[in-house]
Formats: sequence, structure tokens, C-alpha cells
Amino acid sequence: MTIHPVIMCGGAGTRLWPVSNLARPKQFHALVSDKSVFQETVLRFTGAEGFHQNPVIISNAAYGNLIARQLAEIGVVPAAILLEPEGRNTAAVAAVAARYLADALPENLGLLVASDHFIGRPDTFLAAVRAAAPAARDGFITTFGIAPSRPDTGFGYIQAGETLDGQVARVAAFREKPDAETAAAYLASGAYSWNAGIFLFSPETMLAELAAYAPNILAKSSEALERAYLDGAFRYLDAAAFAAVPSTSVDYAVMERTRRAAVYAPLDCAWSDIGSWSMVGEVSSRANSPAHIEIDCAGCTVHAADGQLVALVGVEGLIVVADGNRILVTRKDRSQDVGGVVKELKSRGLKDFL
Amino acid sequence: MTIHPVIMCGGAGTRLWPVSNLARPKQFHALVSDKSVFQETVLRFTGAEGFHQNPVIISNAAYGNLIARQLAEIGVVPAAILLEPEGRNTAAVAAVAARYLADALPENLGLLVASDHFIGRPDTFLAAVRAAAPAARDGFITTFGIAPSRPDTGFGYIQAGETLDGQVARVAAFREKPDAETAAAYLASGAYSWNAGIFLFSPETMLAELAAYAPNILAKSSEALERAYLDGAFRYLDAAAFAAVPSTSVDYAVMERTRRAAVYAPLDCAWSDIGSWSMVGEVSSRANSPAHIEIDCAGCTVHAADGQLVALVGVEGLIVVADGNRILVTRKDRSQDVGGVVKELKSRGLKDFL
Repeated sequence: MTIHPVIMCGGAGTRLWPVSNLARPKQFHALVSDKSVFQETVLRFTGAEGFHQNPVIISNAAYGNLIARQLAEIGVVPAAILLEPEGRNTAAVAAVAARYLADALPENLGLLVASDHFIGRPDTFLAAVRAAAPAARDGFITTFGIAPSRPDTGFGYIQAGETLDGQVARVAAFREKPDAETAAAYLASGAYSWNAGIFLFSPETMLAELAAYAPNILAKSSEALERAYLDGAFRYLDAAAFAAVPSTSVDYAVMERTRRAAVYAPLDCAWSDIGSWSMVGEVSSRANSPAHIEIDCAGCTVHAADGQLVALVGVEGLIVVADGNRILVTRKDRSQDVGGVVKELKSRGLKDFL
Repeated sequence: MTIHPVIMCGGAGTRLWPVSNLARPKQFHALVSDKSVFQETVLRFTGAEGFHQNPVIISNAAYGNLIARQLAEIGVVPAAILLEPEGRNTAAVAAVAARYLADALPENLGLLVASDHFIGRPDTFLAAVRAAAPAARDGFITTFGIAPSRPDTGFGYIQAGETLDGQVARVAAFREKPDAETAAAYLASGAYSWNAGIFLFSPETMLAELAAYAPNILAKSSEALERAYLDGAFRYLDAAAFAAVPSTSVDYAVMERTRRAAVYAPLDCAWSDIGSWSMVGEVSSRANSPAHIEIDCAGCTVHAADGQLVALVGVEGLIVVADGNRILVTRKDRSQDVGGVVKELKSRGLKDFL
């Protein structure tokens, strides 16, 4: 029983402007270490017992060459690079992944993971995935619930129910992003964990649940894969079929409806979705390096492109990002609002700075 | 009686890093308008009644070509460009200027001005200089006292004494940079003004007072000018003679000692020495332009090189300067400490960023 990583890397990440942009979104940048976040995600499984060594990559067609180059840099050969003509959210990705695995490697389990997350304790993460494999083999789609470290209002929460096997339980309920009071109650109760958007499943189960709850997504995604245009390492999903796939999340399309939802929780692997510069600052060795100059400063995070020097004098709690001709200055407690800069650039027609 | 502008432009200006640097100090940058501060200083006298239209420029030899190019850009022909092999402070400049004018144009008055100051009401300034001309003709070295707008501790102060002619009075005393309490008392008394380092004098008087109070400065400066190497528009002061000039200010060498010191005060011409980014922000139309992006910000000043975009999210009272690969972020109330960045760069050996 081998676990096959399926790595999703089609997202945009506008809150990490100016480094993250449409031409090269955040997962393809060296935000946390000297490797890109995508490369770190791929390398997490390299040499890991029980994991297939040739990951399946699913992304946007625009990033095919970038993916091939970044994989070559780290010496990893993909099982397949499946390229979408446009983003249709994660239900479509789950359907394509399940269909691909069922056709090619039906005995494996699929592990659907985002390419733009940080995991500080990878061994803990890998052990959790292995521990969840029996439940997945038994027909559960198993998610992973991150042990909450604060009453965060930016994540969905998973409520664990009846125990199935060790730390794996049935899902009692998925909860949408809560208000601050509810988030505090979730944190206090101990029964809730953050939904990290990681899914372990047998292809058979995922296909069956998609067939039951999202048949149109399954049909059109399967058609897009069957009609894919194969060019070297790349499989370009058929544009006409894929355009007809309803765009929704796998959480909404399947997980909130199926009786086969399970959760491994609490997973305490120093996980972060590095969704804002503040979060990058928390986990990045690079952003906290002394390559910049600080005079009478405290609690600042600097991320500068190679060859750029940032000097801070008498400031506190700032995030400063320099990426060539684009410079961002914000506060740590406001970095989730950086997406507004991208909106403003678009509305002003300043495409060169996107 | 013509007034001959003598423009000093040899200074460095490290507090305006990263724009100001040794290779191109602040006066040669477009800080306030689309022209350089030096060009604005030169143009202040263009077409002005009573002023010679070919200024004398005194600077460091390193800036000769820059000066010639910036003068050509604005169509101004200098009477002379006198180049020092090294900076020897303002007493040497006054001696060289007086000697040059006495030899070439002895009937004119000399007006010694810095090239890196902003004047918001140039007509007021020019009228004040004209009003001070009779006293200068009568043998006074006339300074200009800026009407204080705040109890600033960063300037020397001039105390006015007996009235000579209109707003021109004898100087009762020069006061060094005061502490806060003293500065407040100066502001309240109304008898004190800021020493802006502007001097109007007949060459004859300046030479006589230098001969009386700083004979060595006069002798060596004169020798450096007499032995100057003439190359096209440039007169390179003799290095050996000039190196022997004691380095001190004209205030200390002459003004605090002579009985011929006068002051025109109060001069209310919206003067600023733009000595810090905070001051640049106060007077610059450029730094307050909407070429950058602000979301939920207040009271910020941005100065970015052409082609660079700065975005601010949720910050207040900041100064952000982007100059290619060098980025500064500071607070308005800390911008006088930016010189520390230059020291730190030197101590770390990061010459590329100076």
C-alpha cells in the first residue's frame, strides 16, 4: 500500500504581492528557505517510507515549464504533470487526481496536498499520513486537522466525532470560518481543528463519492483527462470539457456531504499556510536573516530580492518586501490586506507591477 | 551694483541615503521637483533683476562633469566652475569666492549660497538680498536670518542688534545650536533667527576680514586659486596649496569675530535645508504625488525612483524611499538618524549600497 502524493500548485496568492504574482505565484518562490515552497513540498516525500517517489503534479498550463524546471533542479521525476487550462477549484482537482490514479495506479492511496504550505515537523506529518492510511484503505476520505495554536478566524474548522482508529475519527461537522467568539470556543473545547485542505483517499472511494454527490464534476473532469493532449511530460486537460466542470471546493462538493469523511486530529506538525507576509515572517529563516540593516527597530520582517538592501530606522512591527521595482510596506497585523494592493493595481491598469 | 551668486555644491548629505550618496549627493537629485535641487538653486537667480546671470560654482572636483551637465540642461552658462580637490569647509570657499570676484569682477557683491536648500517664496528671498545690498556695499558682511517657525534645536541662531537699514541690523551674537528650552526662549523673544548660511558681501570686505581674522586661510586659498589648473570650464584649485588651508566654517573664522557682521531678519521665504527625508516630505510635490499606492494609511511620504512602485498598507507616519536596489523605511520623527545607515554600511564593507 503506497501513498501517492498529488501536489496542487495552480493557485495565485495575491496576499504575498509583490513576490507572488500571476506569472509566478507564491509556491514557486524561495519564501522560507533557499528552495521554492513547491520544491520543499515535493522534497517532503523524498525518501519517505510508504510514499511513492514520483509525485503527481496538478497545476495551471501557464506553470508547466516552471514546474518541470523546478522539479529538475531537485532531481525529482514526476509520475505526471496534469495541466488545467483554467482554475476550476479543488473538486475538479480531486476528480482528475482520483481518475488518474484509478486508471494508472489503482492500488495506491492518493494524498492531495497544496504546494504552498509550510510544515515545520515533516516527520510528524508523514507519520500522521501513514497512521491514517488504514482508514483510507477502509473507504474513508481522511482529512488532517491541525491542532489550533490560536483562535484563528481565517480557517475552516473540523469537529471530530466517533473514533475510528487511533487518532482517526469520523467527522462530526465541518465548520466555516468562525467569528472571534466562536473561534475562542472551538479552541477551548479541544474537539476542533483547522482544516488544512489535505486529503488521503483510495481512488475508488473518491470516485464513488464524487459520483454520488458531484456527478457532473466527475464526468466532465474525467472527460477532460481522457481527452488530454499529451506533450512530453505534460498532459493538457481538454479545454472544452474542463470549462464545463462546475467550480467548487472538494470540501463543499464531497466532504460536507459524504458519510465517509474522517479526520486525523490533532496534527501538530508546525503547519502554516503562509498565507500572508506575517506568516512568512514567522516561519522563514530567510526573512529573519541579518542581510538588511536595522537601527533602533523591533519585530520587523524583511524579505528582499537578491542584491537589494533594505534599511530600517526606528520602526516596529513592520513587514517590508522588496522585489525589484515593487516594494511593499505594511504592518504585521495588516498583512492579510495586501491583496487590496493587487486590486488597486488592476483598477489603475498598472499591469507592469502585478 | 550687481549681485553675483556664488553657489556652493560640494557637500555630501548622508541623511538623505539612499538617494544621496558620495557619487551623487543630494543637491544633484530631483528631490523636490523634476529638476535637481542644484538646478533649482541656480534658476532662482535666472532673470532676477540685480543679479548676475552667470553664477560662480564652487564644488568638489568629483562633481565637475555633473555640474556642467546639469547647467547645460537648464541653459545656464557659469562665470566659473571652481573645483576643490577636497572639502575644506566654508571659510575656504568664502576666501576663494572673494578672491575670484575681487580679481574678476570687483565692483560686484558676492552672494554665497548653498546649493541644497529649498526656498518656497523665491521672490521674497530675492527682494531681501536686494534690500541688504546697500549695507553690503557699505562694508558689512550680511547674513540672512530665517524667521523661526518652531523651536528647532538643529540650527544655529543669530541675535539681531542695532538696526542699520530697514530690516538689516548689526549682529549682536551668533548662538550655537541650542537645547530645547533655549530654543523655545529664542522663538518667544522674536530677536533670534535661524542662521541659513547665506552671506552677501563685497569682495573687498570679505578679503579684509579674512586678512584680519583668518590670514592663513586667505593666503592658502588665494594661492590655490592663483595656481589653479584651467581645463575648459573648470578651474581645479591647486591641491598642495588647498590641502594647507585650515578647515573651518566662515561663521567661526570670520562672522563670530568681525565687527562688520550684519543680518537681514526676519526672512520669511519658506526656507528649508531639506536636511532629512522628513523635511523633503514637507516641501516636495514629488514625494506627495499619488504615484504610489496607499491603503488605510496616513501621513506617509514616499520617494521612489522612476519605474519603482511602493505600496503601503495600514501604516502611519512613515517615510519610504526606494532607489533601485536600496530601500529605506523610517519614521518621520526618526529621519534625522538615517546617517547611521551610511555608517553601518561602511562598517560592514557594503560599498555597493553606499
